[in-house]
Order: sequence, then structure tokens, then C-alpha cells
Amino acid sequence: MNYSIIRYIVGWVMVIECGLLILPGLVALLYGEKTVLAFLAAAALCGVTGGLLVLRKPKNKVFYAREGFLTVALCWIVLSLAGALPFFFSREIPSFIDALFETVSGFTTTGASILADVESMSRGLLFWRSFTHWIGGMGVLVFVMAILPLAGGYNIHLLKAESPGHQVSKLVPKVRSTAGILYGIYMLLTALEIVILLFSGMPWFDSFVLSFGTAGTGGFGILNDSLASYTVFQQWTVTAFMILFGINFNFYFFMLIRKPLQAIKMEEIRYYLGIILGAILLIVPWIRSLYGGWEETFRNAAFQVGSIITTTGYTTTDYDVWPQFAKTILFLLMFVGACSGSTGGGIKVSRILIALKALKKEMNSLIHSRSVKRIHFDGHPIEHEVMRSVQVFIVAYLGVYVLSFLLVSLDNFSFETSSSAVAATLNNIGPGFAGVGPTMNFGDFSILSKLVMIFDMLAGRLELFPLLMLFRPAVWKKF
Amino acid sequence: MNYSIIRYIVGWVMVIECGLLILPGLVALLYGEKTVLAFLAAAALCGVTGGLLVLRKPKNKVFYAREGFLTVALCWIVLSLAGALPFFFSREIPSFIDALFETVSGFTTTGASILADVESMSRGLLFWRSFTHWIGGMGVLVFVMAILPLAGGYNIHLLKAESPGHQVSKLVPKVRSTAGILYGIYMLLTALEIVILLFSGMPWFDSFVLSFGTAGTGGFGILNDSLASYTVFQQWTVTAFMILFGINFNFYFFMLIRKPLQAIKMEEIRYYLGIILGAILLIVPWIRSLYGGWEETFRNAAFQVGSIITTTGYTTTDYDVWPQFAKTILFLLMFVGACSGSTGGGIKVSRILIALKALKKEMNSLIHSRSVKRIHFDGHPIEHEVMRSVQVFIVAYLGVYVLSFLLVSLDNFSFETSSSAVAATLNNIGPGFAGVGPTMNFGDFSILSKLVMIFDMLAGRLELFPLLMLFRPAVWKKF
Repeated sequence: MNYSIIRYIVGWVMVIECGLLILPGLVALLYGEKTVLAFLAAAALCGVTGGLLVLRKPKNKVFYAREGFLTVALCWIVLSLAGALPFFFSREIPSFIDALFETVSGFTTTGASILADVESMSRGLLFWRSFTHWIGGMGVLVFVMAILPLAGGYNIHLLKAESPGHQVSKLVPKVRSTAGILYGIYMLLTALEIVILLFSGMPWFDSFVLSFGTAGTGGFGILNDSLASYTVFQQWTVTAFMILFGINFNFYFFMLIRKPLQAIKMEEIRYYLGIILGAILLIVPWIRSLYGGWEETFRNAAFQVGSIITTTGYTTTDYDVWPQFAKTILFLLMFVGACSGSTGGGIKVSRILIALKALKKEMNSLIHSRSVKRIHFDGHPIEHEVMRSVQVFIVAYLGVYVLSFLLVSLDNFSFETSSSAVAATLNNIGPGFAGVGPTMNFGDFSILSKLVMIFDMLAGRLELFPLLMLFRPAVWKKF
Repeated sequence: MNYSIIRYIVGWVMVIECGLLILPGLVALLYGEKTVLAFLAAAALCGVTGGLLVLRKPKNKVFYAREGFLTVALCWIVLSLAGALPFFFSREIPSFIDALFETVSGFTTTGASILADVESMSRGLLFWRSFTHWIGGMGVLVFVMAILPLAGGYNIHLLKAESPGHQVSKLVPKVRSTAGILYGIYMLLTALEIVILLFSGMPWFDSFVLSFGTAGTGGFGILNDSLASYTVFQQWTVTAFMILFGINFNFYFFMLIRKPLQAIKMEEIRYYLGIILGAILLIVPWIRSLYGGWEETFRNAAFQVGSIITTTGYTTTDYDVWPQFAKTILFLLMFVGACSGSTGGGIKVSRILIALKALKKEMNSLIHSRSVKRIHFDGHPIEHEVMRSVQVFIVAYLGVYVLSFLLVSLDNFSFETSSSAVAATLNNIGPGFAGVGPTMNFGDFSILSKLVMIFDMLAGRLELFPLLMLFRPAVWKKF
């Protein structure tokens, strides 16, 4: 294990976080809040520690997948620990575990909150809370790669370990340029949403933080009723952008370089949009009687479906009172998740497609003893290794889900509360059902449950393996 | 597709069912119940139809896996339809769908009942109900193979399609002898349980039907409180036999032919027993306060754990009032299931072991780019095909679970009721939680939900593929 390079990259992440903490600090200053001191203290701590860590450049440039997983896991843990400091220093979240939960929930774009009354929080911290969504959405190491002149072959290992999806394809030959392009698209789309929301008459603070939350598919709001009190136009706008941010970013890249045919050929996106449409149509008849008119019914159905499949977690209505069938659809969408290569969480549409294709193939091979047809995806044959790793991933995902569910059950909340709390954190959604429904929060869980869910949020965001690797002694060996 | 041979085998299954229906008919006669007529009518209908179907021997002996799957699926459907007749004819279950549900629940060894008051049912029907467990436990086609002189290479396809587990190994070179040996062990163990229960002072009727239910890991009882009112010794005896019937029958075979070393080397059994022990120890502290003493606590924990992991479904206590952690353990055990090659349902311990080993291997290969270590099971390397099919199976299992859960949710029962009802039927357990808990029944579900659960019970018992094949048009083609 090449520890010096890991130390170096972790150091840079801290230096960058120091810089990132300045922004909410300025917001706090603007509103004349004294939390500005908490931000300064946190930024100083980050900057100094990070500065010390990057002082000495690593001599050894060896960097394999092993180092990649470990670096990503450690960076995210350090990022979260440091990010929790402003909440803790300001005493607005007096318990450090709670502050950590809130921060991890932010960076992993989960949006699950331990706050009973979000409206009582200061502006600066609200801004930071939503800003963590935006930072975590595209990935902090992707950001490091985009701005730092770190030469070497290890970029791809970092990109692979941090980006969601079963396969990471470099858009352009150089990893650094790929990272830059991804961030470019990300910023452009975010800016577009901000502008539209401002245009709709939303205050600038709300426009910024809600767009951060949409872009990262996070879900932290600044009102206790999430997005219920915004206008019809604003709700539809956010619905559209949630769905857009759940699309594989390669789509936008293909559109940008004027290859619309290649963009439209992406199977995953067609199924993703198909699932959204299907879910809305299935839900609408069941909730029609709860709302005043067809537009309101469709709007609430579309908003909740878009919010949950993209694992954002904003809400416009208390879906926990919907009939069980509609709730079950939402529960299942939690696991489906968005597209690979988007900012959304969950298992991802592409993995589910591949697993279903493998099932079909298995059934065919049972009938015609030894047919060796390859599975195709986007028109290309899939390597056996990819298929295998997709299935292993799904099994591992369920394994983590099951173990977490068991541990969280120790708190003796209801079946629905415990199982949906784990589903909502592992899939980076935010709210669940019953005790963690849209009108509730995660504050009442025990410290053990909070730690389990902190782990789940990180595991969900980093797609399990970087986090699971931490538990394998072989990884830590210095060979 | 070789339809004539399928017709022939289905015919034989009906002829055999005609014979099997005589036994409960005799019981009804013994008790002077007029349901004897219902049994006679059903037996006659079976016998005549079956007789007509087997009249003409098939010329074409071609028999592939395709035919095997279809035959098994059709046989089980026909078996269930005919088996439901006595309930329906006697008017003790006036709705045919309910009668079918009860019969499928019997043959698939599920034990889920639509009856609110089982004690009001006549003796003959109670006997038939439990007898279906015993028939279904080892498999009706295994029985056909054991007694019918059907030469040809197709036996193995039938055995494969009907027997539970990821891999069916012939114990002896001839499939027919294997089937005979399996049934021999099955009868011996059942007889042993009957004798011990009789010895304990249990009435002969109870001893027989409870032993049938244990042997098939079924779970139909004859008292409304299942096994709660039997003696301590009787409860421990049933606990022991439930666990014994959940063991891979190869174990007993190896013991019989005096190869205890080979028997003890079976990894699956060690893990199976380990999981049972672990679950009991985890549950005991949580339920200690609910019972009078340590023996009672351990007995109830052991009984429920044994009952659920083997997918039997007998109960001695209303576990639905246990704390959530204990209930969650039971819920998870539902999916684990018993050993391959036993009469139990669920995913099976061996599949879960293989999936976990694959996960470990995947993580190793992520660290050391291209290691090609094979996974071992019972000391032998596992073929890649087996690994792949195990993972596909787990994914398919969850797929069926998820779809069924969605359809059953249409009835608008609680999350816990719907999800555990599907888990309890797909895994062939019987009772679930909340609305289908140990003191409740399945009578209130809609016809659609009952049909879904009938499908799930069959799919669970036949391990998905035979049932799923019915939906693939390619299977029905005559090529």
C-alpha cells in the first residue's frame, strides 16, 4: 500500500474543503450571523491540517485500484468529519454524531436530516448544508482531478471508485479532461436551474440552495414542508431538473459534441424515462381523490416519483398517507435509483437492466442446453466480468441492506420505519416512510443506528466497495 | 416440445393422486364423516382423467430440460387443482380459489391458511390437508420416478426441476434408485417422529398429521393455536425434527452408507446449524421478559427459529408481539431457508454461501487486478456456471418477490402485512407478521392477491424456473 500518495491526496481534499468553507462563511457574513466564526475555525483547521499533509510530495507514484478504493473512502470520511465542524462549533447541532450524520447526509446527497425544525437554522449553515449536496453530487475527487495537475495513471482508479455506475467510460482520452467536462456540464445545468427559479420569482437564497440540492440529487430543503409551499411552476421546474440530473451525463456530452444519435441510443435512459412515466401513471389513479384536480394529482405524483427514483428526496406532499400500492411503488423506486454516471444513487437502472438480461439468458440456456449468446447493452456485447460484477454488486447491496436493517431494528421502531430508514439512507434518498416519513426526521434513532446509517450513506454513495474494502485486512497490508 | 410424453406423465400423476386420495377417504370413513363422498368423487375424477391420459404410451421418447420444466410445472398445477376438489365438493371451503390456495399451500409445504377456525374442519379434510404437505415435501415426481418403470434419460431432468437446491447430485448412478433412497430416508424419519410423538402420549391423529407437516416442512396444524398447547417434550421433539428435515438428505445417505466423514464435511450443514444457533442466542435476551423461565424462553426461541428457517411455519407463541429486532431476525431467516436437497424452502443456505464467496472473490479481484482463484464448496471447486446461476437465481427471486409485493399492495393492507405475506408464501413458510401473523390468516386478501400468492408458493417450491418458463413463448414452440 502506497500510504504517502494517499496522505497527499487526502491533504489536497482538506485544502479544497478549506476553500469551500469560505463560501458559506461569506453567506453568514452577508446575513450578519455569528456562525461566520464557526466557518472560519473549521476552514482554518482544514487548511492547516491539509497544508501540512501536502507539504511533502510523495516520491513513490505507484497507484493501483487498491490505493484508489482506500483513498476515496478515506477522503470521504475526512471530508465529512471536517464538514461537520461548523454545525458543531456553532452549537446549532450540539451532538457531534448528529452533526456528522447531517454532513454525511449532505455530501452523500442523501438528504436525511436529524433536524426537527430546519427553519430555525441560520442562513450560513443552511447554505453549507445544501452546498455539501452540490459538492458530493459530482464527487470531490473528480473535482480534485479536474483542477489539480496530478500526473500519473492513477486518475482512472479514483474516477472509477468515486463515480456511480457499473462502468466508467472516459469521455475523452485524458481522465483529467473527462473530469473537467463532467464538472462543466454539472455547473451549466445547475446555473440553468438557478436562473429559471430566479426568473420564476423565487428569492435568490432559495434558488441557490434548492438548485444545489437538485443538482446533487440531495434533498435538503430550507422549509419544514420541503417544497410544498413553492409555486406550481417552481415545483414543475424542480421536477424536470431532478429527472435531468438523474440522466447519465454521457448523454449531455454526446449532445454537446453533436452526436444526438449516440445519445438517443443509450438504452438506460429510455428505460429510466419509461420507468418514471410508468410509475406516475400507476400512482395517479390511487391518489386522485387526495388532491383537488388532475394537474395537482399529476404534479404531486411526478414530483414524488422524480424525487425518489433520482434519490433526491424533496417532497411536495406527505406521501406517507398515500394508499399502500402507491407507497410500495415509491419503496421499490428507492432501490432502482437513477442512471449510471448521474448524480443519483440506488442500484442504478443499468445494473437492473443487465441483471434482467442475464436472467433471460439463463432461462434460454436452460432450454437450449448450451447456447452462448452474449448479452448486449447499448448495442455492444457485455463482458462476462461486467455481468458477474453487476450481480455480485446487487447481492452485496442486499447484504448491506439486510445487516443494517437488523442493526437498526435494535431500536425497536416499527418494521416500516426501520426498513425504510435503511432503504432511504443506503440509496441516498432522504425521507422514508412511517417514523422517517416526509414530515418526520432521523433524530430519534440511537447512536448505533446513526453510525450504521452514516456507513450506509457513504457505502451507497461510493457504491459499496470502497467502504467494504476498509474491513478487509489484506487491503491495509504494505506489500 | 414433446407434448405426448408430458401428457403421459401428467396422467400418471393424476392416477397416483387418485390413489393418495383414498387414504384421507378412509380416515373420513373411520370417523363416520360424510366428506368421504367428496373424496370418492375427487378420486374418481382423478382416476378416470388420469387413466385416459396414460392409455396411449408416448412413441417419441425425446425429453430435454425444456420438457422437464414444463412437465414439473404442469404436474404441480394439475395436482393442486385436483387436490382442491375435496375441500370444494364438501363445501367446507365454499370458494374454489380459497380451496386452491389451501391445497397449493399444502403441496408446496407452505402452510399458509385461509381458514379462520381450523378446528371446525372435519377430520378427513384435516388429514388430507396435512398429507399434501408430506406428498409435496419430497416431491411428487420423485415419487413417480421411484415407483414407475419409466426408462429413458429424462429422469434427471425431472429430478433437477423438482428438487430444491442449486445442484442435484445423483446419490447412485441410477436416478430411479436415487429417488427410491430419498423416499426411503423420508419415510424412515417420518415414522420415527410419529413413534416418538405417540410415545409421548399424543393422540394418533395428531401424531400423524403433525409429523406429515414437520416432514414436508409444511406447517398446517389442527388447532387454532398451532402447537402452543402441546407438551414441552412434544414441542422440543417437533423442534428437533423440523431442523432434521431441513438438512440436506445427502447427509443421511452418507451416514447410511457409513461415510460419516463425508457427511460431516458438508459445509452447508455446518453453516445451517450455526445460523440456527446464532439466531436463537440473539433472540433469547430480547424475549426473556415475555416468558416464565429460561427453558420456556429457549424453547420458544428455538421452536420459532427452527420453524421459520426450515420454512415449516408451526408456532408455539405469537411471535408478532416480540420486539422488532427479534422479528427482523425471523423475517431474514424466512429468506435464508433450509439446506439444498431438504424439504425446506427459501433461497437455501448453500446459495447464500456461494453468493458470499463470490462477493469475497470479487473484492479480492478488485485489489489484485486479475487473480483467478476458483471458489470452493465442500472442498470442490465450483463451476463458473453454477456460480452464475446461483446469482441469477437470487436476482430472479428478488424480482418475483418485488413484483408480487407490488400486486399484493393493491389490497391496501399495511406494509408489514403485504411484504411478509409475500415473503411467507414465496419462501413456503406459512405465517408472516401483522395481518398474516401467527394468530391471523390469509382469508381477507382479494382474489388477485390469492392468485399471486398461489403462483408464489408454486414458484418458491419449484425454485422459480419451471413456473417462469410457462411465461416464455419459446418454451411452447414445437421445434
